[in-house]
Amino acid sequence: MNIDLRVIGITGSSTMLLSDTGIDLTQWKQLLKKEAEPADIDSFVHHLSDNHVFPNKVLVDCTADTSVASHYYNWLKKGIHVITPNKKANSGPLDQYLKLRTLQRASYTHYFYEATVGAGLPIISTLRGLLETGDKILRIEGIFSGTLSYIFNNFEGTRAFSDVVAEAKEAGYTEPDPRDDLSGTDVARKVIILARESGLRLELSDIPVKSLVPETLAACSSADEFMQKLPSFDEDWARQRSDADAADEVLRYVGVVDTVNKRGQVELRRYKRDHPFAQLSGSDNIIAFTTSRYKEQPLIVRGPGAGAEVTAGGVFCDILRLASYLGAPS
Amino acid sequence: MNIDLRVIGITGSSTMLLSDTGIDLTQWKQLLKKEAEPADIDSFVHHLSDNHVFPNKVLVDCTADTSVASHYYNWLKKGIHVITPNKKANSGPLDQYLKLRTLQRASYTHYFYEATVGAGLPIISTLRGLLETGDKILRIEGIFSGTLSYIFNNFEGTRAFSDVVAEAKEAGYTEPDPRDDLSGTDVARKVIILARESGLRLELSDIPVKSLVPETLAACSSADEFMQKLPSFDEDWARQRSDADAADEVLRYVGVVDTVNKRGQVELRRYKRDHPFAQLSGSDNIIAFTTSRYKEQPLIVRGPGAGAEVTAGGVFCDILRLASYLGAPS
Repeated sequence: MNIDLRVIGITGSSTMLLSDTGIDLTQWKQLLKKEAEPADIDSFVHHLSDNHVFPNKVLVDCTADTSVASHYYNWLKKGIHVITPNKKANSGPLDQYLKLRTLQRASYTHYFYEATVGAGLPIISTLRGLLETGDKILRIEGIFSGTLSYIFNNFEGTRAFSDVVAEAKEAGYTEPDPRDDLSGTDVARKVIILARESGLRLELSDIPVKSLVPETLAACSSADEFMQKLPSFDEDWARQRSDADAADEVLRYVGVVDTVNKRGQVELRRYKRDHPFAQLSGSDNIIAFTTSRYKEQPLIVRGPGAGAEVTAGGVFCDILRLASYLGAPS
Repeated sequence: MNIDLRVIGITGSSTMLLSDTGIDLTQWKQLLKKEAEPADIDSFVHHLSDNHVFPNKVLVDCTADTSVASHYYNWLKKGIHVITPNKKANSGPLDQYLKLRTLQRASYTHYFYEATVGAGLPIISTLRGLLETGDKILRIEGIFSGTLSYIFNNFEGTRAFSDVVAEAKEAGYTEPDPRDDLSGTDVARKVIILARESGLRLELSDIPVKSLVPETLAACSSADEFMQKLPSFDEDWARQRSDADAADEVLRYVGVVDTVNKRGQVELRRYKRDHPFAQLSGSDNIIAFTTSRYKEQPLIVRGPGAGAEVTAGGVFCDILRLASYLGAPS
């Protein structure tokens, strides 16, 4: 594509770097140290909207912050396009989400968020393509957490559940406190994003979430204490696993959007060994779309769904999509 | 999307139906019978380019015809966008393909062909997204033929190879003459499309194709004769299958784009039972992209990759993408 793409501002939570014509990206890190000023989101946005050198402006929110996400509406209203992997706006209060979508539909200002689900995997764009061409979504079912994918792909009977969690933690697959993954909250956010994209008007609180954190361990004051006490539940986990195994099934932690019954769910389910979800490896995500058009056999996307590089790929894809929409030749 | 989409012409090979303002799509079939005139591709295209009521015009080629595809260059030059599931232009002579791409890059006229590979599955768009965001394609490997997917997914030791082919034929999964599927030509066309999209300058004749039609049966004068003689090769097939089985592997007919060694190939390969290709069912397509970004674990798309409805979905997706590129609000 022939696009002239300039970064005219970079901000963290403490410092920001501004330029009227474009920051030299080969040395942005040094510049952010040397020439930065104290971060201020309002002046950052003014800097962007006051720039009249460039015709189109996009703000890319790479935080996971709720307060940053609360600004999208005003930014879009100012004519600033918004692109983000941040799940907070789309999984926040329904009325605010609907307000955002209504504004976007009424304007030529774009809001893209492909990387909120599955990072660089084509999930949102595939769903949109199906919906826009008149397909009817019946069910979206997926393993949306790389961490929980890894844990259940490796919990195969040779090691205790707590050992697999410890291994995932050591390999850096989990959050510093594995309870943040095991609670299922992040999966629920992805479910609500896909549910709303499919037309369901649900709040995050409408999604029943099966937490894998035992109730008695939710109160542990530290991740270390939690990890120390987790082995006391290994026996229960082993029983669940062998029960599944006896039925030629495996355990998987999945998110479900059921558009027929207008509900979403996050649960621990059992799948037959020949099911695509049973055959996963590594920390892959897998998402199956069952629709009027893909009814007998679903449309499935699978691959790594987390990590800086693939997330950046998803965000960059959105930036180029924006450029195309704004008329850049492809 | 808020787009005003009108069909102002429909043509088959014998008759065509034209309208200056839009054909009533609820009764196009009756109209095509009653009000049609003799088909003529030149006057059809003039009708389109002479229309000044609508600002943007797109010609959707839903044939599989080489001579229709040879017109794309001139249509694009006239400012008519082209969308097609027809593989002929992109898998035809390299110089003509390159001429088409050069013209397209230099103009604001679009040429989309998502449905040429995998019908409605997001294959071309995913590949483009990776390439445009700077990822490096290392390898694309896939089961691109629904027919051959079905045959090898069901050739599991209980039935003879010829029985599985007969079953596929009876179920309508094959072309009227199964040799058209078994020859691998159609898979080779998909491989060349993806290879060229990935930047390789290859001719169709550069792709070695393993034909599954025994040499002595290539000359059979009819499909019936071919089907009658196919059982004489069952023993050879059974041996290949049991050899694979002994190594805990299965046979799969795949297309490969190897960008590292700048070549493509269509071959019968063996895959370990835990490989995603071994776990296929029905007549699903599956395509795995191994890239710099998706190196440890590939990005995989899987699902039905043929049939009128999903192909129409892919074509319609391209039409809406075109509308977005032309500035329709999303």
